[in-house]
Amino acid sequence: MSTYKLTYFPVKALAEPIRFILSYMDKEFEDVRFERENWPTIKPTMPFGKVPVLEVDGTQLHQSTAITRYFGKEAGIAGKDNWEALQIDIAVDTIHDLRQAISSFWYESDENVKEKKRNEVLKDVVPFYLNKLDELVKSNGGYLANSALSWGDLYFIAISDYLSHMAGIDIFENHPNLKSLKDTVLGIPKIKAWVDKRPKSDL
Amino acid sequence: MSTYKLTYFPVKALAEPIRFILSYMDKEFEDVRFERENWPTIKPTMPFGKVPVLEVDGTQLHQSTAITRYFGKEAGIAGKDNWEALQIDIAVDTIHDLRQAISSFWYESDENVKEKKRNEVLKDVVPFYLNKLDELVKSNGGYLANSALSWGDLYFIAISDYLSHMAGIDIFENHPNLKSLKDTVLGIPKIKAWVDKRPKSDL
Repeated sequence: MSTYKLTYFPVKALAEPIRFILSYMDKEFEDVRFERENWPTIKPTMPFGKVPVLEVDGTQLHQSTAITRYFGKEAGIAGKDNWEALQIDIAVDTIHDLRQAISSFWYESDENVKEKKRNEVLKDVVPFYLNKLDELVKSNGGYLANSALSWGDLYFIAISDYLSHMAGIDIFENHPNLKSLKDTVLGIPKIKAWVDKRPKSDL
Repeated sequence: MSTYKLTYFPVKALAEPIRFILSYMDKEFEDVRFERENWPTIKPTMPFGKVPVLEVDGTQLHQSTAITRYFGKEAGIAGKDNWEALQIDIAVDTIHDLRQAISSFWYESDENVKEKKRNEVLKDVVPFYLNKLDELVKSNGGYLANSALSWGDLYFIAISDYLSHMAGIDIFENHPNLKSLKDTVLGIPKIKAWVDKRPKSDL
């Protein structure tokens, strides 16, 4: 049996999809959450100086999307053929485009630049993406792709608190199909068990 | 036989990986390059208001990485198992992290902010990533992953002119393993044939 050790800041954000998929697969993992003051020491020990990093039997893996996709395949929730896998990948990278737009102001240090970007992104980009994603889920029987649960759905719902926190809104408000997808994913018993026991954090 | 229609600006950038993989597979495609002045008209007709978009038998696909991965699987250059596919995905998303860092100043409209970001990114981020990627290729027998050609190598080399142009440097200079990978990919006869006949553009 493989051993899993996940290293990240003490938040959900980009590590949470890995926590979701490992929980979904009923795999135990060591959930290492370091304090921000220790990051300068930890950073040089990570493959490309970034986290989350998942060690599988001592081998360091980075890139949360790639890792979640890998386990999604292993779990059998990555589409029934290459075309279906493509539809999941498209949806997930679209969510990353939304995330990048929100991150572009959230991680901006100059307050004037931040405010200008925030206004642009919240006025146009965020509503556009959320409406389109809501339509996508509606047209896919309540899921992001292929009218079936996939690792993409787990990825999206796992980072949704992070997106809402950065944007300063509840991304599910007025988006009934996204809200329904959230309820579906959080209703999966193994996901629910994880969410009930995980440490509390804002993002 | 499927028909392929690719729509993008008149540049290489994010469409070039799709052009590379379709050329590698010897698939004919319509290469629609619209002028920037027509973008406002075209934008609302695209799935999430972005390009490149590839129409396969009339079905619109977006997200260049997802599309290139899909064809990579169909072409048999996507790893021999899930673990190998993961290594390719990690490498490609790492290249996207590098691209995002470079894009963060390239697409900045405020000249003061742009200059400050450019200095930070070119001084630290770009050399760090290029050195690490050079090591990665060295340790993988001349490829990004698994000591074998993959769609990830095609993706990287296809966008390399875009990366160099935005960064204002030749990303292959002083990175002999990356340069060797470039020569390998551009030496593939079907890729060479495409590169020889493609329209010229800076990025």
